[in-house]
Amino acid sequence: MERGRIAIVGCGLVGRGWAITFARAGHEAALFDPAEGAAEAARARIATALDDLAAVGLLEGQTAGDVLARIGVAPGLEAALEGAVHVQESAPEVLEVKRALYLDLDRIALPETVLASSTSGFVASSFTDHLDGRARCLVNHPLNPPFLIPCVEICPAPWTDAAVVERTRALMEGIGQSPIVMTRELDGFIVNRLQAALVEEAFRLVEGGYASAGEVDRAVSEGLGLRWSFMGPFETGDLNAQGGIRAYAKLYQHVFHRLAQPQPQADWLETLDRGVEAEMRARVPLDRLGERSLWRDRRLMALAVHKRQQER
Amino acid sequence: MERGRIAIVGCGLVGRGWAITFARAGHEAALFDPAEGAAEAARARIATALDDLAAVGLLEGQTAGDVLARIGVAPGLEAALEGAVHVQESAPEVLEVKRALYLDLDRIALPETVLASSTSGFVASSFTDHLDGRARCLVNHPLNPPFLIPCVEICPAPWTDAAVVERTRALMEGIGQSPIVMTRELDGFIVNRLQAALVEEAFRLVEGGYASAGEVDRAVSEGLGLRWSFMGPFETGDLNAQGGIRAYAKLYQHVFHRLAQPQPQADWLETLDRGVEAEMRARVPLDRLGERSLWRDRRLMALAVHKRQQER
Repeated sequence: MERGRIAIVGCGLVGRGWAITFARAGHEAALFDPAEGAAEAARARIATALDDLAAVGLLEGQTAGDVLARIGVAPGLEAALEGAVHVQESAPEVLEVKRALYLDLDRIALPETVLASSTSGFVASSFTDHLDGRARCLVNHPLNPPFLIPCVEICPAPWTDAAVVERTRALMEGIGQSPIVMTRELDGFIVNRLQAALVEEAFRLVEGGYASAGEVDRAVSEGLGLRWSFMGPFETGDLNAQGGIRAYAKLYQHVFHRLAQPQPQADWLETLDRGVEAEMRARVPLDRLGERSLWRDRRLMALAVHKRQQER
Repeated sequence: MERGRIAIVGCGLVGRGWAITFARAGHEAALFDPAEGAAEAARARIATALDDLAAVGLLEGQTAGDVLARIGVAPGLEAALEGAVHVQESAPEVLEVKRALYLDLDRIALPETVLASSTSGFVASSFTDHLDGRARCLVNHPLNPPFLIPCVEICPAPWTDAAVVERTRALMEGIGQSPIVMTRELDGFIVNRLQAALVEEAFRLVEGGYASAGEVDRAVSEGLGLRWSFMGPFETGDLNAQGGIRAYAKLYQHVFHRLAQPQPQADWLETLDRGVEAEMRARVPLDRLGERSLWRDRRLMALAVHKRQQER
């Protein structure tokens, strides 16, 4: 397997997840983080995560050591970018930090290197307009962690070269991700817009006192979320009426428009004060959230294994 | 196991699903449908579905025959209601049909029998206001099929007796469902309001040309839907920020409000005309939708088995 070298710039949760995802698929990954010792610490945490993935059979038959051997710590940004075909930037979500960083990345990286950002908060045009090499820049936004959640959003700036979009799509497909390629920029991309629509309605329902947060959670975790773990909303509709999506639209557009008409936005903090925070803390105390996050990660791993079996 | 008798009034897809769900848990279920031969035909389809459930281990160690033996066809409405502790009505979604039917149900059923509707389209006050026994009426709305999707929404009318709500909740918990009890009526209840918010945004994203229907589907089926198959939106937020839901709200309320601000409603049919219908039919031709629905049902069964294993 010949695969190009990847530079991981920024080694927090997101950068670590990318390093695992690329290295598991056979790429060499070079870690860089400007904070002293951060890349070394990240590599140690990656080693632990790889052991967990190996234990559940999510390393494609490789050992944790096989994958870890492809992940190195670069002594500096120049060394990280040396020979890289793709830079995956996961720096802090601060626009001025990104604007300055991209000046460096564009200056140092070989002209053919793609510069991709993990940002969820900014469109690529907002931090690449000032670059000579802005045509090779785009957003490649993962869900966390990408080694368990395949969806990744590729969103070009107006000036991104179409060939750069296609190279990134091919790279993502080659490492087993499921890329969504947007045609043009939109605040929030696709995933967070869908999520925001549902979360806002969830807060409104609780704010209105119709049900508790726990009950709204179960409407998803014991209800809507089951189908959505293997089918999106269009396919769900396509199978929910004799005659497919057109029959579904004719039957339900007026109903769904009535339910989803423009409404005032929920006051999240006020809703928390009025009982939701107490309810959440009764479910899981603050000092046990870390443990609950491990439970979530184990469930995501088990679900990834389940989905692979089903899709075979 | 002693369990009360259930009357299943209306034997379409929803009524059949309820019969399986009640009988699997040990209840006797009496089928009634006013259409000639409909209840008998429903029982035959139930037998096939029970074979499938037995094959994947979703009958709690019983045989399909054990469960089917508890499901009988009643010769008339009076016979179906005889001795019933709970009537689950799944008649057509036509208000005048329901209003007339509830006059009969309220006249025939023993005074202590609960009258519960599977309706998704009407609140209970709209079809029970004219009844002497309106205090024993409520909505008990399933997702389909209830024997694979545990969530069920209990929504009382303003005049529903609190004891009737509690009996219905206990009945649902007793048969392994996950009931959501609403405090008061709201058009669409909880599940369809959450669904409508997301589906409307999905249509808007495709209408705006940002991505294809297939890509929006994958944002859910390979992205958001994975966590949502075992965690709702509040717990997801609680685990997505150091400091739990309050830290999450402080970090993301302004972002999500920006993404989910009130927007014009999508024109679903226009969006279908502009390519989505062609895209869906290229994915699955109209004459293979039945086959694809069987695939969905098998996936839901496998997911139900997976979730039971995980929750043990």
